[in-house]
Amino acid sequence: MPSWINGLPAETLPVTDRGLAYGDGLFETIAVKAGQPLLFERHLQRLATGCSRLAIAADQSLIRSELLAFAAQLGDGVMKLILTRGDSLRGYAPAPMAEPRRILQGSAAPAYPPAHAEQGVYLFQCLTRLSEQPLLAGLKHLNRLEQVLARSEWQDSAYAEGLMCDTSGRIIEGVYSNVFLIKEGVLLTADLSRCGVAGVMRAELLAQARMLGIGTEVRDIQWLDLEQADEVFLSNSVYGVWPVRGFAQLNWPVGPLTRKLQDIARALLDV
Amino acid sequence: MPSWINGLPAETLPVTDRGLAYGDGLFETIAVKAGQPLLFERHLQRLATGCSRLAIAADQSLIRSELLAFAAQLGDGVMKLILTRGDSLRGYAPAPMAEPRRILQGSAAPAYPPAHAEQGVYLFQCLTRLSEQPLLAGLKHLNRLEQVLARSEWQDSAYAEGLMCDTSGRIIEGVYSNVFLIKEGVLLTADLSRCGVAGVMRAELLAQARMLGIGTEVRDIQWLDLEQADEVFLSNSVYGVWPVRGFAQLNWPVGPLTRKLQDIARALLDV
Repeated sequence: MPSWINGLPAETLPVTDRGLAYGDGLFETIAVKAGQPLLFERHLQRLATGCSRLAIAADQSLIRSELLAFAAQLGDGVMKLILTRGDSLRGYAPAPMAEPRRILQGSAAPAYPPAHAEQGVYLFQCLTRLSEQPLLAGLKHLNRLEQVLARSEWQDSAYAEGLMCDTSGRIIEGVYSNVFLIKEGVLLTADLSRCGVAGVMRAELLAQARMLGIGTEVRDIQWLDLEQADEVFLSNSVYGVWPVRGFAQLNWPVGPLTRKLQDIARALLDV
Repeated sequence: MPSWINGLPAETLPVTDRGLAYGDGLFETIAVKAGQPLLFERHLQRLATGCSRLAIAADQSLIRSELLAFAAQLGDGVMKLILTRGDSLRGYAPAPMAEPRRILQGSAAPAYPPAHAEQGVYLFQCLTRLSEQPLLAGLKHLNRLEQVLARSEWQDSAYAEGLMCDTSGRIIEGVYSNVFLIKEGVLLTADLSRCGVAGVMRAELLAQARMLGIGTEVRDIQWLDLEQADEVFLSNSVYGVWPVRGFAQLNWPVGPLTRKLQDIARALLDV
């Protein structure tokens, strides 16, 4: 379906947009089923947090209604919202009257091999590290060159994802996924206060695990944690949960807690 | 004058451009006088380095001829080239056949107060730090949220620029300038191998200083270096050199070496 800009069909945007000039904006990639956006409140919440932290004065209720209308037209697939600070004259200071720009794009759901979810995946060991910037950590902002560089490191389709460390060597996340470890029944995922994207599926799985009485920990993850993990899996708001079978010289079985959380993710995405 | 995209007049670009989606590209801001781009070879060189490091397969000779043609039409002012990796389908991996996109915008030369160059400027102390990412350091890439955040920290026009440290506390650069210190006749500027933009005026001033037999040092700069500096100045390829009079509780006179290098910059920009 055609893209929308500020609610109207459009395939192009002005060259003066600050999203282009500086990556000055945010995005959300939202699964859509039967005309409904999935994990919708969590996507809206992360976007609002991003607007607040970047001081982008966007009308959140307008964004909500526009996303609902776009999803209804899309039917099934994935919709991507890019929200920029709007147009600029010259220089990093925003124009005083800049109006944020809402760009909506729809596409078919990505055709991942079913084996990724069923048998699990292998992870490439990315050399590109995530730099540490607390002011941007957790946000799904438009400055994504580190992910572009990391994704360009491998072409071999034997690797479904790549795992990234920060510049201090902590295990942080996949290029387009969050990572979870399970050790003695406790669910562990990386602290994202220095870098990384706080995924909405990550947040949802943490919340659901707590409701089920599963222990959760959000803290720094070191290589030793990977070595000692009983199970490892990835999460993402479009594909749900993929078990991880191998990374570098490490291997894991697809374990029961991974399957349980995968079922939860599936239920959320198979409306 | 109208903008050009890939050599043709155009004011809009496709919403699928990776410059918008990920900040996946580079830019150059080039002063133009009497139809001629200034410091042209250095701008082209930095751009080519950026293309090489980001693996953007752009036609450098086409870029050169297009910039020359655009400058000739602009006459006097500033031209900005944004070079993106081109269009994307979905995901961080580039589309195999993606063609880089060249976006050219022209504007009048910025009207900085003449006092900035004559009497010198005062620097705001930015709290936003530069994250350390050797893979991107030195490049003028499109991931500029740190500069946007830093520039938003002050509105008081008493500060012409803001000074930024990296996350380890080293003094790196201004938001849109490089910084130089002079101590006992030696010219000192920050090592930019972890973060920062390697300005073309910075490179030119270092080269000219060496030719004049002035000692130069490119190394980490700490607060103590600022305290002990005899002179401090900023450089940028559009305004040239601004003496720095004050920063935090520190003050400096406008010294003779600053004036000498300012004259050199002026000669380069006043074709």
